[in-house]
Amino acid sequence: MKLYTYFRSSAAYRVRIALNLKGLEYESLPRHLTRGGGDHRRSDYLALNPQGLIPLLIDGEATIAQSLAIIEYLEETHPEPPLLPRAAAERARVRSLALLIACDIHPLNNLRVLDYLRTPLGHDTAAVSDWYRHWVACGLRALEAEAARASRDQRHLVGSDVTLADICLVPQMYNARRFDCDLEPYPRLKQISAHLEGLPAFAMAAPEAQPDAV
Amino acid sequence: MKLYTYFRSSAAYRVRIALNLKGLEYESLPRHLTRGGGDHRRSDYLALNPQGLIPLLIDGEATIAQSLAIIEYLEETHPEPPLLPRAAAERARVRSLALLIACDIHPLNNLRVLDYLRTPLGHDTAAVSDWYRHWVACGLRALEAEAARASRDQRHLVGSDVTLADICLVPQMYNARRFDCDLEPYPRLKQISAHLEGLPAFAMAAPEAQPDAV
Repeated sequence: MKLYTYFRSSAAYRVRIALNLKGLEYESLPRHLTRGGGDHRRSDYLALNPQGLIPLLIDGEATIAQSLAIIEYLEETHPEPPLLPRAAAERARVRSLALLIACDIHPLNNLRVLDYLRTPLGHDTAAVSDWYRHWVACGLRALEAEAARASRDQRHLVGSDVTLADICLVPQMYNARRFDCDLEPYPRLKQISAHLEGLPAFAMAAPEAQPDAV
Repeated sequence: MKLYTYFRSSAAYRVRIALNLKGLEYESLPRHLTRGGGDHRRSDYLALNPQGLIPLLIDGEATIAQSLAIIEYLEETHPEPPLLPRAAAERARVRSLALLIACDIHPLNNLRVLDYLRTPLGHDTAAVSDWYRHWVACGLRALEAEAARASRDQRHLVGSDVTLADICLVPQMYNARRFDCDLEPYPRLKQISAHLEGLPAFAMAAPEAQPDAV
């Protein structure tokens, strides 16, 4: 498998964690998201992925964009160890928390959105940071409440195994720290994330551990 | 089953289509998203769904937020007719296009985001409309290119059956028309959406057909 990745892309970070958890080897194909307007906006990359976003997984004939679609694909093609529980209601709970992050926090704070706030909207760094922290706080507040209901051991968001929800949590917490978001209101999320970050599959996937890290 | 819904919520619209396609009866529990600050922000609703967003599905003991998590749950608990193809690579393609809409278009144009652009950011209607149309255009441009590769009959986004990707397309096209987005650059998407909107399961799920439509 080949993965188009960028060390700081939190969507790519999710996929790297999933690949590591499944014990799957892959070739990293870094695409720099800011240098020269972004490698992901060049025509050769757009021909592969019209969405023009990172990550992209190539597995033989299959070319898959969108981190959660990639992880569901890995789950179906390499079921062990599972990243979703067995029972439908539990699977739904895991997907719901993953989507809370992947739909309702991350896209609002993506690089292209922050760029649009600066130009054409003309906002300064302070306003852009407020925007960033506002959506992180909205999302993490809900996620903290969900963790209170779903976590069984304070080491995983749902139940007592690593799931897709945990895979989304860690990169989101990394981003929140990077943008100096106040994480004191989320003691459960901090505790869960700290545990997960210590696991080898998560540590090997961290931005600083990537070949393209700056 | 009970569905917390709002006639114009495009995430609820997706779930209504899926329930109709599966032939599942459900009780509609409308929650008005704008009146009096929003029924979904009241404490009784937040106790059910800490995320405070519509839709929410109640199925016996299961309470499920996030439209795509709900639809995957319906797919697992009521497999017929399938909303995902059988082959893993095809399933990934469908999920990828659904997520393109659900992560990279819709959340940027959600009511709460447009509200934030107005207050505190102070943008006028014209700037908010430009924002809306910008993200619709980014997403639909990519989706048109994806449809060129994945649609087999110009009536479905992927292959020649209704899938989760189609379920996400129709509400997004509805929103785009509502905000006067230029759809001329997307002839495939227009053709596919027009076909789907004529199917009973889609027509019954349309905003205007809901009991809470204004």
